[in-house]
Parts: sequence; structure tokens; C-alpha cells
Amino acid sequence: MFENTERTEIGNLGEFGLIDHLTKNIQLNHKTTIKGAGDDAAVLDFKGKKTLISTDMLFEGVHFDLAFTPLKHLGYKAIQVNLSDIYAMNGMASHVTVSFGFSSKFSIEAVEELYSGMLLACKKYNIDLIGGDTCASKQGLVISITSIGYADEKDIVYRNGAEEGDLICVSGDLGGAYLGLQLLEREKQVFLANPKIQPDLEGKDYIIERQLKPEARLDIIDLLKKSKIKPTAMIDVSDGLASEILHITKQSNKGCKVYEEKIPLDPQTVEMAREFGLDPTVCALSGGEDYELLFTIKQADYDKIKHDVDISVIGYITEPGAGNYLISKSGNAHELKAQGWNAFKKASN
Amino acid sequence: MFENTERTEIGNLGEFGLIDHLTKNIQLNHKTTIKGAGDDAAVLDFKGKKTLISTDMLFEGVHFDLAFTPLKHLGYKAIQVNLSDIYAMNGMASHVTVSFGFSSKFSIEAVEELYSGMLLACKKYNIDLIGGDTCASKQGLVISITSIGYADEKDIVYRNGAEEGDLICVSGDLGGAYLGLQLLEREKQVFLANPKIQPDLEGKDYIIERQLKPEARLDIIDLLKKSKIKPTAMIDVSDGLASEILHITKQSNKGCKVYEEKIPLDPQTVEMAREFGLDPTVCALSGGEDYELLFTIKQADYDKIKHDVDISVIGYITEPGAGNYLISKSGNAHELKAQGWNAFKKASN
Repeated sequence: MFENTERTEIGNLGEFGLIDHLTKNIQLNHKTTIKGAGDDAAVLDFKGKKTLISTDMLFEGVHFDLAFTPLKHLGYKAIQVNLSDIYAMNGMASHVTVSFGFSSKFSIEAVEELYSGMLLACKKYNIDLIGGDTCASKQGLVISITSIGYADEKDIVYRNGAEEGDLICVSGDLGGAYLGLQLLEREKQVFLANPKIQPDLEGKDYIIERQLKPEARLDIIDLLKKSKIKPTAMIDVSDGLASEILHITKQSNKGCKVYEEKIPLDPQTVEMAREFGLDPTVCALSGGEDYELLFTIKQADYDKIKHDVDISVIGYITEPGAGNYLISKSGNAHELKAQGWNAFKKASN
Repeated sequence: MFENTERTEIGNLGEFGLIDHLTKNIQLNHKTTIKGAGDDAAVLDFKGKKTLISTDMLFEGVHFDLAFTPLKHLGYKAIQVNLSDIYAMNGMASHVTVSFGFSSKFSIEAVEELYSGMLLACKKYNIDLIGGDTCASKQGLVISITSIGYADEKDIVYRNGAEEGDLICVSGDLGGAYLGLQLLEREKQVFLANPKIQPDLEGKDYIIERQLKPEARLDIIDLLKKSKIKPTAMIDVSDGLASEILHITKQSNKGCKVYEEKIPLDPQTVEMAREFGLDPTVCALSGGEDYELLFTIKQADYDKIKHDVDISVIGYITEPGAGNYLISKSGNAHELKAQGWNAFKKASN
């Protein structure tokens, strides 16, 4: 994966040299940026709007596997994952800081590849990269990103505002990223067992892209604004649908009913789940990394979204203490439990 | 170091459990905090002031050595290092996000110890901890902190504003943190060679504290404000005096003259340097981690600070192209060169 034609050792540049090298072509486009990288701190002007801040850390071997994750895709995804949190506040993402540490196995060219994916994501979503830190690590790659955005106070959507009777909506479809990961891990094992066998990924492009190159749903935030809908609660789906719904109902002190038949699944997701002997619904509930938006709206807003194919109404909010239930296709009620993707469990495997 | 009476494995709690456990006692005191941890993003209100953002990453084995760094001190220092960047903009630090990854050698109690140092620093400097991320790492401890602050636009001090004739000032004294580190590393080697020999740290408390428990110089920012001085340029001393001066003169497009005899050194620093056969001036110029403030002021402001024992005038800014010189005690001019602490060199040792 790191066999570029050129290989320049990072020690040749040193820390300041590397930062200069990476940041020299950064363009700042956001009207809120007064000063980007190059001083002790960046300076931003949100002109009286509220500031939104979110942060995430990604470890090689825990959150990503470089055996099947191209570095450019990884950089792109790392940014998307963070922007998704700002959009989940119904805010506009505007800036990121990007820190990473990497061991000596990485060449300058490899770091550039990672960085180019980050810059591509920034360009596409009109984000200014305003600072960060680069360090040596003893082992592998670590990425830490802080995303910054803004919103008018009246527009901000928290997790705790869901009311009884509100409709539970989710964008896009679910479970694909998880099955894309299962597929990539399977093909990696096949390859390790016999390097002559090429990965069999035909017809699986959608779920692989869901895993390797997710897109934060800025388009949904724009759509809600255009439709004059302010969700009552919102969260992004990073740890699986069940875990996210429970965050909303717990923080809103409500219950919920979610209908299995309403959970949006792509045909590739269903097919791949069957191939692995998995229940596609379970993949959607507990798979994680879909980076869709889960939100609740007032019933009065239903007419505004009912024709949108990219938003599914999957259930509704119930009274406090009523519990959280999944109604199966056969009509049985199952208690919803969070079995979200757990980095600690995964690392100890 | 991790032999607490209790040891709870992190896997027992899981990621959400650990975050809840750590954040349950966080108090938010800052009037700018609308929403802290617990949603997709924190929400801050700087009421029309400019937002300042800075970020840093610290790796075990590169930036710190747990053989002689108590976890509580490490947490405290990690926060200070980040606040220092906000103060170096002449801003008020107000918030931090804190992410860390750690391997299975760390118990919950160890993580609590680290976190308690962070919270202590936040309490002392009136900082709200508003979010972060905790992950498993494959090896060792990694900390990533983003500090957030604010300032009126007219008060912000960049690195690029130094003018010819401005006085170069530095707070506190320099080189102590570096010699504290040398001492701790020496005693570690002695201990490893013969565990029965206790570390000989008597009379070295000041330089050890400089290394293990630095304090960001909020007091200097307050003093400058009270004295009605706005520095023309400012930076914090994290990589050694030479490196920082060169950042200011390069970005301001000026030269400088710095007088060796004016560089503030603590007697313990001088004594320890002699013991190691090092030149104390070189330790100040290239040692790093002092977290003092280096700033330039107009000559007209000199009277306002000349009696302050905690601020030293060490030289002045010269015309563009005049070069950067250290005037030695014997009157010779030496070109100033940045030989700042270099994480990459260090890691490859």
C-alpha cells in the first residue's frame, strides 16, 4: 500500500518542515476564518452566532485497517465523520483542526496521501483546515480531528427535545457500512491465505463505498431548512440505529416504537447480510458507521417530507416510561437494546 | 505506577460507560457554555467576540515517559500546554475538549488519575471541559486536546506584528523544564541499573516542577491588560527561546538582537546545567517546554514593565534583513538558529 514510486523519510523534513510542506497549499475560503494555521491559535469570527465543537480520535488497528483502507479514503472519511457531528446539531460545519501521529513506516508520500483525502473532503464541504499537530508515534497511525461550526441559537437541535407523538425519521439507508466492513475483512483473510486470489468485490461497490467513503448528510440539513422543518431532536448514526435512538429517548425522557419493516435497507446490504448468515435488521440496528441522520419531527411536519425518498419514517416517540420497542415484521414487540460498535470490545478481540 | 489498591478493567464499563463515569462530575462554570459534553457537539456563545482554537497531541514514549511522570501531573500539564497557546494570542481560554486512547495496561483507576489532573487544571484556570473521545489504543497512551478561547478583535496579538525597535520580553525563566527532564531521565537510568538506589532529587524541586507541572501564564496576560500594554507580537515558549524568536522575526519580516546576559535563568537551572556539562544559555535557547510567554512591546511601554521582576527585556527587534543575533556575554554576535525540540528526531533515537 505504501509502495509509491518515491519514498521520502519524514525525518528529512522534521516537524516544522512537514507542517509547512503539508499546509503550504491550503486555501482558506470560509468567510468566518480570520487566521488559519501558522500562529499559536486560529482566529474565527462567527459574528454573534453560536459556536459548535466536536472531536474524534481514530486509531489504526482499532478504527481502521490499512490493509484495505486507502490512505486518501481514510483522510476523507476522518473528516466526514467529524462534520457529521456538527450537522447533527442542525449546524453548519466550517472548520477543522487535524492532528496525526504516525510511526516511521509511513513516508512523506503516505502522509501526503492521507492529507489529500482530508483536503478533498474539506473542499467539497467548504471547510477551512485551520491548524493541527503532527507527531511521531511509536506504532501505527493515530488521527484526531476537531470540527467547528456555527448556528443561530433558535436553529440548534439537541438530542433531548423529542416529544410524545413525534415521528422518528432516518436519512438514507442503514447497515451498509457494517456489511462493507465484513466483506473487506473476509476478502483480506482470503488474500492472506492465498495471495494469488484476487478480492471478489463485484456488484458490492455500494456497501464498500459506505464503509470506505461515507458522506456526511449536509444535503439533509439543507433539505430540512428548505422545507422549514426544525427537528425536535437529532443525532448522527455512528454506532448503529438502536444505540442512537436510545440516546434520543433517554435524553428526552421518552419511549419509542420502531417498525422493523420501515428500516431502510439497500438491496446490496440485504443480499450481503444473507450471504454472511446475518439478519439485515440487526446489521442496521447495531452495525454502526452509517453516518446518516436520525431525527424526530412533529406530526404536523409529515406532509413536508412524505414524498422524499431519502427520508424514512421508521416509528414514533411514546410517553415516558413506555419503554423502547422494535415491532417486528410479524408484529411482535422486542425491547430495543444498544449493542453499538464498541471500540474496547473490538480492541480486546 | 499503576498499582492502585483497586484495579478495574476498562472493558467492564465499555466506551459509553467510561465516558459517563468520567464526565458525571464535570461542572460547567463558564458563562459562555450553553451545552457541554453529552450531545453530538458542544455549543458555545462568545457573544460576538472572536473564537480562538488550538490543538495538540501527546504520545507516550515521545512526549512523556510514564516511568517518572505521575498520571495526574500528565493530565494537568496536557491542559496547561494547550491553554498556553490561547494566552499567547492575548486571549482568554475558556474551554477544552479532551480525547485519549490507551491500551489495556491502563485500568479505570489510572484513567481517572489522568482525568483528575485535567480537571484540576480546568478548575484552576476556569476552563469548562466540554467534550472529547475515549478509545482503545494498541500501544500506550495518546492524548489529544483542543483548547478554545475568545478575544475582542482589537486585543488579539499575532506572531507577525513586531516592529523595528520593539523590545523583546520574556516571562519567568527559561531552560528549567529541559534540565528537569534531563535529571528525571538520569535518575530513571540509575534506578533501572540498580532499583535499590532511590532517586536523588533533593534541592531540585523547582526544575522538576518546571518539567512535570508547568503553569500557563494567564497571570502575565492579566498583568499586560492591567498595565494597558498590547504586545506587538507574542508566542509561547514551547520549543526553546531561539525557535520562538525566529518564528516572530520571520513572520514579522524583521531581525533581532538578543543579549545572552539578559536571558532569565533560575539558579537551579544554572547549577543543574553545570552538573551535566551543559551551557545554561543553550538550554534556554533550545531546551523547550518552558511555556513562558515571549512577546515584543513598543519602547514607549517599557516604563510600565521595567519594575516587574517576572518580565525580562532580553533584546530588541531590528530592521528587515539584519539577521537574528545572540550577543554573547563577551560581546560576540552569533547567529540565532532554531534547534528546537524535534519530536521526530527524538522518536527515531
